[in-house]
Amino acid sequence: MQDSKLINDPVFGFIKIPKGLLYDIVKHPYMQRLSRIKQLGLSSVVYPGAQHTRFQHSLGAFFLMTEAIEQLKRKGHFIFDSEAEAAKAAILLHDIGHGPFSHVLEYTLTKDISHEQISLLLMEKMNEEMNGALSLAIKVFKGEHPKKYLHQLVSGQLDMDRMDYLRRDSFFTGVPEGSIGSARIIKMLNLKEEQLVVDEKGIYSIENFLIARRLMYWQVYLHRTCITYENMLISTLSRAKELAKRGVSLFASPALHYFLYNDVDKKSFYEGDEALNNFIQLDDNDIWTSLKVWSNNEDKILSLLSSGMINRQLFKTEISSEVFNERAINDIRKQVSKHLNISTEEAKYFVSSGIIGNKMYDPFDNSIDLLYKDGSLKNISEISDILNVTSLSKRVNKYYFSHFRID
Amino acid sequence: MQDSKLINDPVFGFIKIPKGLLYDIVKHPYMQRLSRIKQLGLSSVVYPGAQHTRFQHSLGAFFLMTEAIEQLKRKGHFIFDSEAEAAKAAILLHDIGHGPFSHVLEYTLTKDISHEQISLLLMEKMNEEMNGALSLAIKVFKGEHPKKYLHQLVSGQLDMDRMDYLRRDSFFTGVPEGSIGSARIIKMLNLKEEQLVVDEKGIYSIENFLIARRLMYWQVYLHRTCITYENMLISTLSRAKELAKRGVSLFASPALHYFLYNDVDKKSFYEGDEALNNFIQLDDNDIWTSLKVWSNNEDKILSLLSSGMINRQLFKTEISSEVFNERAINDIRKQVSKHLNISTEEAKYFVSSGIIGNKMYDPFDNSIDLLYKDGSLKNISEISDILNVTSLSKRVNKYYFSHFRID
Amino acid sequence: MQDSKLINDPVFGFIKIPKGLLYDIVKHPYMQRLSRIKQLGLSSVVYPGAQHTRFQHSLGAFFLMTEAIEQLKRKGHFIFDSEAEAAKAAILLHDIGHGPFSHVLEYTLTKDISHEQISLLLMEKMNEEMNGALSLAIKVFKGEHPKKYLHQLVSGQLDMDRMDYLRRDSFFTGVPEGSIGSARIIKMLNLKEEQLVVDEKGIYSIENFLIARRLMYWQVYLHRTCITYENMLISTLSRAKELAKRGVSLFASPALHYFLYNDVDKKSFYEGDEALNNFIQLDDNDIWTSLKVWSNNEDKILSLLSSGMINRQLFKTEISSEVFNERAINDIRKQVSKHLNISTEEAKYFVSSGIIGNKMYDPFDNSIDLLYKDGSLKNISEISDILNVTSLSKRVNKYYFSHFRID
Amino acid sequence: MQDSKLINDPVFGFIKIPKGLLYDIVKHPYMQRLSRIKQLGLSSVVYPGAQHTRFQHSLGAFFLMTEAIEQLKRKGHFIFDSEAEAAKAAILLHDIGHGPFSHVLEYTLTKDISHEQISLLLMEKMNEEMNGALSLAIKVFKGEHPKKYLHQLVSGQLDMDRMDYLRRDSFFTGVPEGSIGSARIIKMLNLKEEQLVVDEKGIYSIENFLIARRLMYWQVYLHRTCITYENMLISTLSRAKELAKRGVSLFASPALHYFLYNDVDKKSFYEGDEALNNFIQLDDNDIWTSLKVWSNNEDKILSLLSSGMINRQLFKTEISSEVFNERAINDIRKQVSKHLNISTEEAKYFVSSGIIGNKMYDPFDNSIDLLYKDGSLKNISEISDILNVTSLSKRVNKYYFSHFRID
Repeated sequence: MQDSKLINDPVFGFIKIPKGLLYDIVKHPYMQRLSRIKQLGLSSVVYPGAQHTRFQHSLGAFFLMTEAIEQLKRKGHFIFDSEAEAAKAAILLHDIGHGPFSHVLEYTLTKDISHEQISLLLMEKMNEEMNGALSLAIKVFKGEHPKKYLHQLVSGQLDMDRMDYLRRDSFFTGVPEGSIGSARIIKMLNLKEEQLVVDEKGIYSIENFLIARRLMYWQVYLHRTCITYENMLISTLSRAKELAKRGVSLFASPALHYFLYNDVDKKSFYEGDEALNNFIQLDDNDIWTSLKVWSNNEDKILSLLSSGMINRQLFKTEISSEVFNERAINDIRKQVSKHLNISTEEAKYFVSSGIIGNKMYDPFDNSIDLLYKDGSLKNISEISDILNVTSLSKRVNKYYFSHFRID
Repeated sequence: MQDSKLINDPVFGFIKIPKGLLYDIVKHPYMQRLSRIKQLGLSSVVYPGAQHTRFQHSLGAFFLMTEAIEQLKRKGHFIFDSEAEAAKAAILLHDIGHGPFSHVLEYTLTKDISHEQISLLLMEKMNEEMNGALSLAIKVFKGEHPKKYLHQLVSGQLDMDRMDYLRRDSFFTGVPEGSIGSARIIKMLNLKEEQLVVDEKGIYSIENFLIARRLMYWQVYLHRTCITYENMLISTLSRAKELAKRGVSLFASPALHYFLYNDVDKKSFYEGDEALNNFIQLDDNDIWTSLKVWSNNEDKILSLLSSGMINRQLFKTEISSEVFNERAINDIRKQVSKHLNISTEEAKYFVSSGIIGNKMYDPFDNSIDLLYKDGSLKNISEISDILNVTSLSKRVNKYYFSHFRID
Repeated sequence: MQDSKLINDPVFGFIKIPKGLLYDIVKHPYMQRLSRIKQLGLSSVVYPGAQHTRFQHSLGAFFLMTEAIEQLKRKGHFIFDSEAEAAKAAILLHDIGHGPFSHVLEYTLTKDISHEQISLLLMEKMNEEMNGALSLAIKVFKGEHPKKYLHQLVSGQLDMDRMDYLRRDSFFTGVPEGSIGSARIIKMLNLKEEQLVVDEKGIYSIENFLIARRLMYWQVYLHRTCITYENMLISTLSRAKELAKRGVSLFASPALHYFLYNDVDKKSFYEGDEALNNFIQLDDNDIWTSLKVWSNNEDKILSLLSSGMINRQLFKTEISSEVFNERAINDIRKQVSKHLNISTEEAKYFVSSGIIGNKMYDPFDNSIDLLYKDGSLKNISEISDILNVTSLSKRVNKYYFSHFRID
Repeated sequence: MQDSKLINDPVFGFIKIPKGLLYDIVKHPYMQRLSRIKQLGLSSVVYPGAQHTRFQHSLGAFFLMTEAIEQLKRKGHFIFDSEAEAAKAAILLHDIGHGPFSHVLEYTLTKDISHEQISLLLMEKMNEEMNGALSLAIKVFKGEHPKKYLHQLVSGQLDMDRMDYLRRDSFFTGVPEGSIGSARIIKMLNLKEEQLVVDEKGIYSIENFLIARRLMYWQVYLHRTCITYENMLISTLSRAKELAKRGVSLFASPALHYFLYNDVDKKSFYEGDEALNNFIQLDDNDIWTSLKVWSNNEDKILSLLSSGMINRQLFKTEISSEVFNERAINDIRKQVSKHLNISTEEAKYFVSSGIIGNKMYDPFDNSIDLLYKDGSLKNISEISDILNVTSLSKRVNKYYFSHFRID
């Protein structure tokens, strides 16, 4: 009887999962649910290869956590087996609260509750089931463990979450230059007063990591067509919810029905089980199935939006470094209203504008420190001769304006 | 205005699609539908990376077709642009008639009609829409074009379908050794009397291709756990259909509802539009959504099977080179019946046995011929010193026996 | 102070070498010498990427040995740390006795002594230097250790030598389909009565390994152009040796000079240090430097052959499955003699013929056994339904005939 | 008879070289010579995989040139076949004047002449042989062709030289994160008034390219151990030259002998053939062979340095962002002199210090301009929000100090 299980991963090869707590987590229905939620949501509209799931990502991040802990031990830092296991459990579970099309959902079907909060709720439920076996992992996840670096490996500037998703997303989208040197970065990890730091000579790897991440943001995560497609889904679900509010009967799985016909907010999740129980039934499939059915709905707005989603008939989108003129937007809105023979109020579903932006690095939150041979620490923003604080912490904004194609 | 579109593919890099007929096919809703059907159906139960879609596969096969045609031209064979385009259109469309979980479906929701036949039906519908622009492609697809090799590139022992799927499935499952030397094989392709042949020195690449394919069959396509999971889905859908026949109301999208509550056979597809119209609405999402809902169904059999599918609680499976003893099977069936408190008749849904097999190479159908420098042809079965006819054409059978876990 | 050293390898990523005995071996001048000897000798004449060295190969085989031993332990087999270290040392050292262009050399500069014998001589010298630290490793290398499988991992049908060179050669030549599933094969390794065996379900990986190896043999190792180029080098060195015998002074490094101007055979290596001391000074550079100088030698034969080597002006070569007609060969020889205005005797340097062949698998020597769940062993030749004993153990011969181009 | 030749490349797959001028260049002895010169000189001291040659690099850059020209045509720019061929010939030949260990050589064996100048001399010689077939290529190489972008593709901020070497060096060193998105950058290339520019949306790829290049500089090209090893070789060759000047007889091939025993400068190359004729006989092999022989030389200094090179016994090196104290250096020099029992003057061979630096991007020389949709151009230094002019054009200096290990 072998004491571990090997799972094939196209990115890292065989991933070894020890039998016991960690394998129990992998087999748990909450975790299996992540295999029905795509890591990149709607990005496959541009990158057809981006079909990988949050389940795969969690396994990959677990793999890197195993490597990172081994590396820290190799440098002479003592870590208890129970602590190592807790960190591994925490990274396996870190995305457990994600719903389908994460951000879209947070704008439409749920309100005032983040996926991190739901993750914690689910971990606590699992912990009960498992008679407290996850208590230490939850402490690590929440940052309440005295060894701060354990939490930083789960969630921080150089966490295993990012290490995996950048490599994995780059692999599956076919944007290989977005890949990062996870092995080299992990090799450079070190500890200083229980904080995660990077050996001095790792600076180029870190710069490369920050810039590769930036490329992935603009080339993939914030790609104009992905943003457009997301906005179309927001419009579609908003319209569905609007119709639901009016009492129109819409095709939906019970779980999706719950979120369409109720106002589900933070309170719903914390008081009673209904919200959470429905939430764990929800995945990408519910949305796609409804979209297909809705594309024949008698509500013209819902059917147009849904069939646009299904058949990849995308809104036209412009990107600019400046805010779009309110008047121009209204003008288009009127044209759309006329073209589709709907009210200007209703035209809002077909016209969308806003900000897209990414902040590469937040120096105040969770800075990256480099460890010098003399034991001193320096922040990357002080010493990088190419990336200075100003540019590093600057939020880059772009403005988009997308609307139904009327030409 | 550029005359082509580049699509990112993690396997082949940028795939260039000329604007016009070929890009119109890619954008067509029938083709977009393939982006919601996984190439490997249920294999992700073992290989979590195997999330790639039939859409990606079709693009990849198209890419290889473009390479193959260029290679044949390089060797001095004249091919009209219209013929080349037809072959490319045909390979783009070759899987257009696939439904979700292909073989499962053919055993449960439809009867007596193959996906190839549905493909042809859909191509003909598209051809009408496109005013006959696909006529030549359909000829190539059906093997009615005088240049036989065009059809062989679409469907034959060395077609671009296999070249792509072996490389792609190997890439996404993380079984890299199942990869084949598509570039080298294409480089070795040649023509002799309008038939596709392989240059003499390509023999080792061909042997390697045959053996890599065999590895992929046993390691992936016929993997015991995948077979089990497929059988569980067959049981689940059969039970759903059984309940539908009895008039029980089951949650389903309209398209899935149609296939559950009607006996859909060949005739249904050829007479009237209903079957085909429902078929093109069906994809993986309908099935997964229903499975989730059914896992709470009051019919114990349906709910047990469905939740097994959803939560990856798999039947226990044995594989043997010999037929399983009928008595042993019945014995287990009785135990299951007792354990689940259902009738022995109903226990059939939880016990499944049968043959799995692959025939690597059928020498009579579509043989692989090697072209010698003197212009003569020899069949690979004659000249390979390692793979002889007997072994090549032998169907390898294994027997499986899987059942609900009662321990 | 870290207790290990990481070396970057493009094939396997970071390779970790523990400080102590193993790292001492890596740093040893004998080992460093392997970094000046190409793994594939003259194959870069066809595959320009094939520049990798025997040093890299040794590190790679060491990496796989580490994985294999970990895997065997994972399956519950106990291995002493000292034994594991000995096996790792043995694989690091297994090629230590290779000279430049291995087979070429054995036909020309040395006589009656194999590189394995020289390896052993060098290991013993190192062992003296290291005060016996290599004694156990040498036992493993010679097959004298009671745990037979340790030796089999170093040298056997499934040794780490092959596992590495097939993957590595495939990687650097750019013949990716020649790659083997080393990770999967290692995962399938097991022990039965101190013999290395393969778990039953590894059969397809083994078949694939055998066929991939075959492809690499014919596509790379025995590629007609490589064979020709090797024969040209044999001719060149033979001519140089002939001239040396006649007392002609030729440019050569002292080490090469020793081998040109002396008859060096087994005895020379075993009696006295001179042969071995010169041998360890010899690498690819000596040969290439002399070839360049010799291409201006006044001996027409030597200069023609040498400049052919340097400028890639290759003999013309034919390959056949039948022996070339003696008369035809003589006929060409006469033509060459006339064309170059040299004697027919001397024309031998420009005409070469012989057998090339590979025996894929020798069932009598070191068979591959598969381990069944019931504990029984079966030989792969018994159970593979595609590769039977006859074909497996058959030596495949091809005949080549190459000669100076006279057209 | 096929009109092109396919060469296997592990980085780009099959590279197709048209028969005629381009294939004639590839076969030319000057070009074949590059297959005996490693692209990265001494970097394999750290990265054992870095064995690839300048020949491979030239083929790779040629491949990318072919892609780039096709891409520009795709965007509607007209390029004559003769111009395309000239650009391809120019990139094939761009490194033809490199000697072994390029920079080392320029400090020791030759004086006042750059490898670019020697390249031009060799191209002109080849052009004579080829009856002027290279005239257009030489014009492109020298930047005298009116279509400036052709020269920029050969030598400029975004030339195919860099595109290839960054990808290739990253591939062979095993530093995958140093890889750049050559395919995406080439896809973004465009022309504006005969200048090479980048489409607006290519900005992230360009930033990534600049930072990946920086990583490769510090992680590979300027790696402290590589710098040390280079300095050791400079010391060794300087000592050899010193001894030669004194009339000491040293082992060397005739070509190396010429450079050791003469003062070879620019004039030597431009007046008479001797320098150039000897230069083309020189490659990595001459140096390594002599180093081995010299490691037994009776001059203690030469033998110590040479055996250090051969057996990888490296100087100890420190890197600092500040100039090393002159007194400290002298102090070490005295210690070395005492330790080795040589004069302080002679100790200079064992102590070396200096600057290492890279300037990532020179805005005045050959700037990277981005092309906006409205036809305007903006320099990357103006618009990158992360990399500003100051940091971009700043030369980063580090100081090294390396010396014989006396501990």
